Amino acid sequence: MIYITRKESFNAAHKLARTDWSEEKNLAVFGKCSNPNWHGHNYELFVTVKGEPDPETGFLVDLKVLKQIIQTQIIDKIDHRNINLDVDFMQNKMASTEILAIEIWNQLFPHIKDAELHSVKLYETQNNFVEYFG
Amino acid sequence: MIYITRKESFNAAHKLARTDWSEEKNLAVFGKCSNPNWHGHNYELFVTVKGEPDPETGFLVDLKVLKQIIQTQIIDKIDHRNINLDVDFMQNKMASTEILAIEIWNQLFPHIKDAELHSVKLYETQNNFVEYFG
Amino acid sequence: MIYITRKESFNAAHKLARTDWSEEKNLAVFGKCSNPNWHGHNYELFVTVKGEPDPETGFLVDLKVLKQIIQTQIIDKIDHRNINLDVDFMQNKMASTEILAIEIWNQLFPHIKDAELHSVKLYETQNNFVEYFG
Amino acid sequence: MIYITRKESFNAAHKLARTDWSEEKNLAVFGKCSNPNWHGHNYELFVTVKGEPDPETGFLVDLKVLKQIIQTQIIDKIDHRNINLDVDFMQNKMASTEILAIEIWNQLFPHIKDAELHSVKLYETQNNFVEYFG
Amino acid sequence: MIYITRKESFNAAHKLARTDWSEEKNLAVFGKCSNPNWHGHNYELFVTVKGEPDPETGFLVDLKVLKQIIQTQIIDKIDHRNINLDVDFMQNKMASTEILAIEIWNQLFPHIKDAELHSVKLYETQNNFVEYFG
Amino acid sequence: MIYITRKESFNAAHKLARTDWSEEKNLAVFGKCSNPNWHGHNYELFVTVKGEPDPETGFLVDLKVLKQIIQTQIIDKIDHRNINLDVDFMQNKMASTEILAIEIWNQLFPHIKDAELHSVKLYETQNNFVEYFG
Repeated sequence: MIYITRKESFNAAHKLARTDWSEEKNLAVFGKCSNPNWHGHNYELFVTVKGEPDPETGFLVDLKVLKQIIQTQIIDKIDHRNINLDVDFMQNKMASTEILAIEIWNQLFPHIKDAELHSVKLYETQNNFVEYFG
Repeated sequence: MIYITRKESFNAAHKLARTDWSEEKNLAVFGKCSNPNWHGHNYELFVTVKGEPDPETGFLVDLKVLKQIIQTQIIDKIDHRNINLDVDFMQNKMASTEILAIEIWNQLFPHIKDAELHSVKLYETQNNFVEYFG
Repeated sequence: MIYITRKESFNAAHKLARTDWSEEKNLAVFGKCSNPNWHGHNYELFVTVKGEPDPETGFLVDLKVLKQIIQTQIIDKIDHRNINLDVDFMQNKMASTEILAIEIWNQLFPHIKDAELHSVKLYETQNNFVEYFG
Repeated sequence: MIYITRKESFNAAHKLARTDWSEEKNLAVFGKCSNPNWHGHNYELFVTVKGEPDPETGFLVDLKVLKQIIQTQIIDKIDHRNINLDVDFMQNKMASTEILAIEIWNQLFPHIKDAELHSVKLYETQNNFVEYFG
Repeated sequence: MIYITRKESFNAAHKLARTDWSEEKNLAVFGKCSNPNWHGHNYELFVTVKGEPDPETGFLVDLKVLKQIIQTQIIDKIDHRNINLDVDFMQNKMASTEILAIEIWNQLFPHIKDAELHSVKLYETQNNFVEYFG
Repeated sequence: MIYITRKESFNAAHKLARTDWSEEKNLAVFGKCSNPNWHGHNYELFVTVKGEPDPETGFLVDLKVLKQIIQTQIIDKIDHRNINLDVDFMQNKMASTEILAIEIWNQLFPHIKDAELHSVKLYETQNNFVEYFG
């Protein structure tokens, strides 16, 4: 079995705040991430799939196809957008890196057909990243 | 003469749009950067100063002091904030990387005292950056 | 289950040499790493914890808390110091990257309370790194 | 058990094309990677071994020895060469990153003696990489 | 005056060898870069233009336009190709990084209209790069 | 005129402290960099030379020669050593990045013969670097 990873990136705004909490409680729990007017990140997304390479092509998957799935299911919906307001699969969810990674997995999973989705790794900054294995 | 550079970073939301233009015109000119609900970036800021090293310390400047100036004048005002809405020195200005770099220079310039400010280099993404030399 | 990683860094001196060996034997085994007058590195430390995100916050852990634990237990003791001479948890131990990663794990483990410590990954240089999973 | 990784790199030419297929079919399946006149990459290779550190040296393996094995078995054969034409262990194989990672594993495996080979990770570009665990 | 830089990349094969020299002389002068069967690189290209930002948009240039010029004039001609054999603007020229950077400048110069081309910076590897200012 | 840069690296220990000052004064001025038992860094060194490419080879300089000069004049003397104690060209000098960059220039200058030395750029960490142009 072999694992292949494709890296993509997107730039998005978000905030961490619960509407059922006061601004003070949000600030106490989420710190500057709760700023009402949003902040943003250059997210880096690493999608890993696993399986056996095709003996004819030497490919586990056609990376152009994998790239296109990530583009259609994730990047087109989230790049240069507001994660809390604009992204259908994040509605009514906390826009933490943890939840975002899980929901990206949920978006991709039904579309990965020629190999098995192994992990979604999501960098919020160069110092913080999350991995989810389903 | 020697040049020393300090790198800092901040995460912020912004959009590129003129309020005196229609949403259509903003979209035509600024593309997805005009998304009304904002997007954001992990900005990287490189501040370079120049001068002669102090023969006693071997330092051109005390980097702790330079770091503190950048922190107070820039990072505290912009990190985890909305460049268009929250940042005093960007009010009524286009939030492009070009204008932001120039205004960061203008903020820093009066506070750099022991050396000469040489350049402000600002990365919006790993693929786009701006340099300003005053 | 989700995995979240926080990256920190520290700059430290060390050498690889046994006091019960001759300088010649140390040189034969450890090469230039045995230089008696020390050398040093910019170490990069990745601490990964795992668990379930809190449904209320979307956080696995509060990264500010995790960062503070790493700061207090590791960085404050090792940054800008000599690993062989100055670091309490490395006394009488070989200052190899392997042993250092294990001892960093041992330092952190009792303090990680809201999630499970998964791994410590330690870069000595961009070309050499160690991972320890307990 | 601890894991240590050594990174090396090599620059090589290759193409993805089957000689039993027409140029049109190769182009349809492999896209621009099938260009008859070759293209190339700066490959980055991460070799990870695992085991117990030696209590006397604190080393899992002597990295100079590991580096020398990678140099002799892989880099000397592939660096500044054509993977399809010049590399003995890739003869009659597809020069995909997947197959190349597997064959690098097969080359290294018999020579890693003081620890257990854990993984070969091979970057073709910063956006695409493969991992193989045997 | 402000400077803005766009980074693009391409993967290509090349060799350094003169057809009017023997293979031995090519090897003596160019070393392993003269391997007859080619090798290759992931090149990184930084194109910098300079000028005054437009007061209405805050843009020095529309980066989408700059990106498109680089794509059409350079990337479409060189990516996944052989620099010596396939690239029109490198015919009968040495495929060194120096000459390639100069010829990329020459290709781009007539097409940069809204700002002044300032520099072309070309990385052959992470350890070697060239800059040309016209 | 074209500029070519070669990157090398070295790992070294140092401290910032004057022997004619008390430990208290050194601490006040140099902070944790004055730790008596040293600390260290992975330094990255970028050496840039400029001139006209040779029309026969397309090379400004033979990078193997430039690399060898940097190796002999700098790396062999400083890598895995103590800058304050072991490096002949840093004796009786402050081991700041500024002074180190100047002295590296002074070491290299007499040996660069086929092109003109343009700059020495020295990273102490990813956040701090110095440039010297002679």
